[in-house]
Amino acid sequence: MVHLDSPEIQSLLSEVEGKIVDNLKEGNEYMKSSVDYLFSSGGKLLRPLLLIIGSEAGRKKDRSEIINLAAAIETLHVATLIHDDIIDESEMRRGIQSIQSKYSKDYAVYMGDFLLSRSFLILAELDIPRELGVTLAKAVSRICTGEMRQYSNRFNLDITPMEYLKIVSGKTAALFSMGLSAGAYMCDADEAVVKKLGHIGYRLGLAFQLQDDLLDYTGDDAVVGKELQVDLIRGYYGLPVIHALMGDHGARVRTLLADGLSDDDVDEVIHLIREGGSIEFTKDLVVRYRNKTEKMIQGLPETPARSMLLELLPRFFDRIH
Amino acid sequence: MVHLDSPEIQSLLSEVEGKIVDNLKEGNEYMKSSVDYLFSSGGKLLRPLLLIIGSEAGRKKDRSEIINLAAAIETLHVATLIHDDIIDESEMRRGIQSIQSKYSKDYAVYMGDFLLSRSFLILAELDIPRELGVTLAKAVSRICTGEMRQYSNRFNLDITPMEYLKIVSGKTAALFSMGLSAGAYMCDADEAVVKKLGHIGYRLGLAFQLQDDLLDYTGDDAVVGKELQVDLIRGYYGLPVIHALMGDHGARVRTLLADGLSDDDVDEVIHLIREGGSIEFTKDLVVRYRNKTEKMIQGLPETPARSMLLELLPRFFDRIH
Repeated sequence: MVHLDSPEIQSLLSEVEGKIVDNLKEGNEYMKSSVDYLFSSGGKLLRPLLLIIGSEAGRKKDRSEIINLAAAIETLHVATLIHDDIIDESEMRRGIQSIQSKYSKDYAVYMGDFLLSRSFLILAELDIPRELGVTLAKAVSRICTGEMRQYSNRFNLDITPMEYLKIVSGKTAALFSMGLSAGAYMCDADEAVVKKLGHIGYRLGLAFQLQDDLLDYTGDDAVVGKELQVDLIRGYYGLPVIHALMGDHGARVRTLLADGLSDDDVDEVIHLIREGGSIEFTKDLVVRYRNKTEKMIQGLPETPARSMLLELLPRFFDRIH
Repeated sequence: MVHLDSPEIQSLLSEVEGKIVDNLKEGNEYMKSSVDYLFSSGGKLLRPLLLIIGSEAGRKKDRSEIINLAAAIETLHVATLIHDDIIDESEMRRGIQSIQSKYSKDYAVYMGDFLLSRSFLILAELDIPRELGVTLAKAVSRICTGEMRQYSNRFNLDITPMEYLKIVSGKTAALFSMGLSAGAYMCDADEAVVKKLGHIGYRLGLAFQLQDDLLDYTGDDAVVGKELQVDLIRGYYGLPVIHALMGDHGARVRTLLADGLSDDDVDEVIHLIREGGSIEFTKDLVVRYRNKTEKMIQGLPETPARSMLLELLPRFFDRIH
């Protein structure tokens, strides 16, 4: 029985990170120090973990293929983070200064492109089956569309929960779904299992983002206000805000968001969101996703992938109570 | 005998452009109008043309594969232009407002990424041989490295012609080389021919960039000064400038570049570049490349590719006399 925190899994994840760093350093003498910097904070490597879990649903074991594919997907993910931070003007990423803030926006554009090209190189060298390549390319394209959709919907006070979930599905869920199912596909799992894992990954991705939205409202009040304020001023509205805009206090929330948003205004928005049941609405949705996802995992054949997913579930869904 | 301007070639190029636009529009409802805008100016489609020429060196004819591969490579190229314009803050591209200037830098970051992802999708669907995929991925990576190298060498008053040619080789020559050889490879040309075409494409790329450098010094004096001034102020030095920095007037040019660069200063730099034989030095290099390249083309087997390349040669090398 393989556990998520077992030395075996940890060592696989280290190998993935090693492959990522080696691949990037090999390709560009101008970036060695920034690559070291980038990976100094240590990411959570969630997508590689999903790939490894997916691979445990299969009949075949090819560690090296899985490590390479995981490195490609994580490199791709980091590239999108670097470009996102340009647009969001984020100062920090994973607890250290973001690339755009440390090196400049220009540098971040090139560095993101370079990471994309190196991700593509790993995939080309892997010679993955055509079907998987197309699925992966479509997932990448969907991430870009998700980003674009999110960007186009800034300051949209009429955005619906459905439209919001579409954004999340592109931005986060597409690659989670891809990771879990690709791992299984590469290791010769049954087609039905591959498909189910895709659905499970998709739901994990949605839940992950919704929990992020909820995190805006937990913990220290001063901190909560600060982070939410930045998002609101930039026109990014999470599900609780979107729900509040449609609720009883909708008109007041709309007025507050449409104007300048002083610190007091932000406090009032938070208050109205809490009063109007928008936190509960979001939590309920998460619980429904959780139950559905758990049922889907339980329906999987008895493989290490199944037990690892059951172990993983609370880490995705129970970050907020 | 197929001519470069024959209706057959023109119609192939139209098909490539159609494929590019369809592929982009299909993938993103948010970008349909900007895609139309982007292609409204009509590019020169040099890379697709090279691919088509390369394909004429082969034994096999598969127009549809060549059109798709050409669309992927041109999409990739346009993506790099969109991102370049962000860094260079270029207002114009191909005679119309650049994407970053018309829509915003943020939008341009996402649009470039989206184009990259769609280029990747075409390639994944094509299911090109592993060897070609790796070569292409390495070419893309080399473009990024070239961009990074160029960016890192801004304001470098000690940059050598060799270092400069390395930048150009990554930025321009890699994809020219790739285009010409990939077309031949896909159409089953002999391995030796594929290799030779790669070298020819590489030299065409270098010459193309050097001619661009020379264009800075021809035509109306006021216009010349204006465009060169922008590059010099941003710290981008072409080969004539680099040569002048190493010549008799080097110390003076260095002083002028290191300071603010008024209009008068730019006039003096241009004067010193002309006086010091830097234009001749660059032209000589172009002539040497031209002769070498012509000899290489003449050494190719008698195929339509050979005659088309001979027809193409002056378009690359004789833009400046």
